[in-house]
Amino acid sequence: MEKEPLLMLPGPVPMPERVRYAMMRQAINHRSAEFGAIYADCVRILKTAFGTTNDLFVISGSGTAGMEAAVGNFGRDREIACLVNGKFGERLYKISQRYGNAHLIASEWGTPLDLESLKKQLENGAELVTLVHNETSAGIKNPAQEIGKLTQKYGALFLMDGITSIGGDNVEADAWGVDIAIVGSQKCLAAPAGLAAISVSARAWERLTKNPPYYLDLAAYKKSAGGMPMETPYTPAIPLFFALREACLLIEEEGLHNRINRHQQMAQAVREAVKIWGLLLYPKTDLRHQYSNTVTAVTYPEHIKDAEMRGIIKKMGIIIAGGQDHLKGKIFRIGTMGAVGAPEILSTLAATQYALRKLGYQIKGDGVQAACEVLG
Amino acid sequence: MEKEPLLMLPGPVPMPERVRYAMMRQAINHRSAEFGAIYADCVRILKTAFGTTNDLFVISGSGTAGMEAAVGNFGRDREIACLVNGKFGERLYKISQRYGNAHLIASEWGTPLDLESLKKQLENGAELVTLVHNETSAGIKNPAQEIGKLTQKYGALFLMDGITSIGGDNVEADAWGVDIAIVGSQKCLAAPAGLAAISVSARAWERLTKNPPYYLDLAAYKKSAGGMPMETPYTPAIPLFFALREACLLIEEEGLHNRINRHQQMAQAVREAVKIWGLLLYPKTDLRHQYSNTVTAVTYPEHIKDAEMRGIIKKMGIIIAGGQDHLKGKIFRIGTMGAVGAPEILSTLAATQYALRKLGYQIKGDGVQAACEVLG
Repeated sequence: MEKEPLLMLPGPVPMPERVRYAMMRQAINHRSAEFGAIYADCVRILKTAFGTTNDLFVISGSGTAGMEAAVGNFGRDREIACLVNGKFGERLYKISQRYGNAHLIASEWGTPLDLESLKKQLENGAELVTLVHNETSAGIKNPAQEIGKLTQKYGALFLMDGITSIGGDNVEADAWGVDIAIVGSQKCLAAPAGLAAISVSARAWERLTKNPPYYLDLAAYKKSAGGMPMETPYTPAIPLFFALREACLLIEEEGLHNRINRHQQMAQAVREAVKIWGLLLYPKTDLRHQYSNTVTAVTYPEHIKDAEMRGIIKKMGIIIAGGQDHLKGKIFRIGTMGAVGAPEILSTLAATQYALRKLGYQIKGDGVQAACEVLG
Repeated sequence: MEKEPLLMLPGPVPMPERVRYAMMRQAINHRSAEFGAIYADCVRILKTAFGTTNDLFVISGSGTAGMEAAVGNFGRDREIACLVNGKFGERLYKISQRYGNAHLIASEWGTPLDLESLKKQLENGAELVTLVHNETSAGIKNPAQEIGKLTQKYGALFLMDGITSIGGDNVEADAWGVDIAIVGSQKCLAAPAGLAAISVSARAWERLTKNPPYYLDLAAYKKSAGGMPMETPYTPAIPLFFALREACLLIEEEGLHNRINRHQQMAQAVREAVKIWGLLLYPKTDLRHQYSNTVTAVTYPEHIKDAEMRGIIKKMGIIIAGGQDHLKGKIFRIGTMGAVGAPEILSTLAATQYALRKLGYQIKGDGVQAACEVLG
C-alpha cells in the first residue's frame, strides 16, 4: 500500500499534521494548570464556532455521548418533540425515548421538515425540541433559525445537534435561540474522533431535569469547569484535548468566516460537478440553502452498483461514503469537512467521474472542470 | 522548564514511545477491516489480562464510563450491595443509586471490607455486588476472590472494578467468579486516558436489565463487535485505539506474568522505603496481600504539610499524588503502574526522602538504599 487512503467521508476526516503530532506528547496531569489552560483554549474558540456566550463543556466521548448528555440532562420525563428527516434525527428520537415522552415528527429522509406538526406539538405542550442541523445521512441542512423562533415563541427548550455543521458552516446558536448545541470533534473541526462539546444556555440550566447519566451529568461538568484550574469531572481523554486545542487554534488562525466560506465553496464545487454529470442531488428540495455544505448526497443513476463504484474509487486510494440503512446502494456521499481543499476535492471528483464512466454512465459534461471553476 | 514532569500518580502514567507515537497517524475509517483488526488485537490481549474468556468490549470514555456501563446494564431496579472502603467504591455506590436500590456496606477508607454485612445483604436478596478490587484512594487491595465465592454461593452477579489492577496485578476474573470486570486505559496498561474495557459473563447477559444509557448500551456493543469487520456502535476514539493496541502488544511482549511480578516488586520497593523511613502505610491492615501493588498510600507524619512536601518534589520534576476528599493533607500516594521501573521509582523515593528531611522529619534509615535492595 502507498500512503494512507484519503477519507472524504462525513467524518472522520483527515487531520492536519499539527493536530496529529500534538497527540504524541507524554501524559500530563489532568488536574493541573496546564491541562486547565488547554481546556480553556478549546472552550474559548469553540464558543465562537457555536456562536454562543453560554457555558460550554468538552466531553470525552463521541457525538452520540454529546446527544445523550443533552437529552439526559434536559429531557427526563419531559414532552420531547423530535424533528426527524435522517438517521441522526432518528438517533435523537431513540435517545429521547429512553428519557422522556418522545413525539416523532418524521419526514422522509432528505425531505424538508414538517414545521406545521411541530407547531401542533408545541401547542400541545412540547417542552424540548430536538433537531439535527446538518443531516449527513441525507445531505440536507435544516432551518435551525426558523425552528428556534418557533420554540422560543412557545417557550420550549431548543436542542440542536450541530455535530457536522459547527466549525464548517454558519451557526449562530445564541441568535437562533438554541439552548443546547453539540459538536463532534472529527467533523468540521478536523480533530480526532472521541470528543464532543456541548453548550448550555441559562434558560436550559433553569430547567435541568433529575437523574442524568452519571458520566454525562452536566452539573458535574459545570462544577469542575468553574474551578481553578478548569477541570473535567472524570479523567479526560488527554491526547484528544491536545489535538482539539491545536485544531481550534488552526480555526482561529484561518478565521471562522474564511473557514465557513471555504466549506461553502467546497460543497458548491461538488454540487456543480454533480449537476454537470447530469446526476441528482439526493435532498428533495430546490432551495439551495437547504443543501448541506459539509457533505453532498447524490442519487445513484440506474444500474450503477454502490460497491462497484466505491470499490473503483477506493482502489485509487479515496474513500467516499455510501448510504446508511435503507439508503444503502441508493446514494453516495462526499464529505467536504475540515482541513481538506482543492487537491482532495478535485482528486475525489476525478476518481468519481472515472468510476461513473467505467460503469457505463454517460456523463453529460466534465464535472472536474466545473469544480475547478468554483474552486479556482 | 526542562523535560515533561515524571507522573508517579495512580494514573495517568507515563506512556512508552511506541504507544504515544501510534497516535500520530492519520484518521482511518472506523468501519473498516483495519480498524476491526486493531479492536480485535486489543480484545484478545485484554482478555488475558482480565483472566477471562467472556465477551469484552472497549468503550470510548473514562473508567467512570466503564463503571456506569456495568451498573447501567445490569443494575436497573435491582438490589445492589455496594462494598465501599474508598473513593471509587463510593463512586460505584453513587452510580448504583441512579439505577437501582443501592445498599451501602461501608468501612472506613483503607480498612478491610465488612464481609459479614455483605453476607446479610446477600441473604436479604442482593442481586448485584459491586467491588473496587484495588482502591487507589486508600492504597488497599480488596479480597476479590473471597467476595466472588460469596456472590456465587448466593447466586448474585459480581461486578468488579479492576480499573487500577488489571494489567498490573494478578486478576483471574473467570476463576474468581467475576461477571463484569472493568479496566481503565491510563493505569497499568500504560495507554492514554480515554478508554475503558468491560467484560461480561454469559450469566450476566442472561440478566441484562432494561433501558441502559444509550451511549453505554452493551447489547449494542455486542452486536457491533459480532460483525465482520468488528466495530463499535458509535464512532470510537480512533487514536486512542491505535495507542491501546500498541500498549497491549507491549504487555504481550513483556509477558503478563513478568509484568505482574514487576509491579509487585515496584510496590514492594516503595513499601520498604516507607518502612525504613519509619512512616506508616495508610491501609489499616497487617496483611501484606491487602496492600495495593499499583499505588502505595502513606500517612503523613505530624507537622509535614502536603502542599509543601509535594511542592518540593514537584520542583524536582516529579508528580506524586496527595489524598482525595477527607484524606487531603493526611496521606501521600506514589503510583507504580504501567511502564515505569527502577529509574522512576528510585528518583521518586530520593526526592521524597529529601523532601521529608528538608521539612524536618527525621528519617529512621535510607529508604532509597532499601528500595535498591528490592529492585536490584
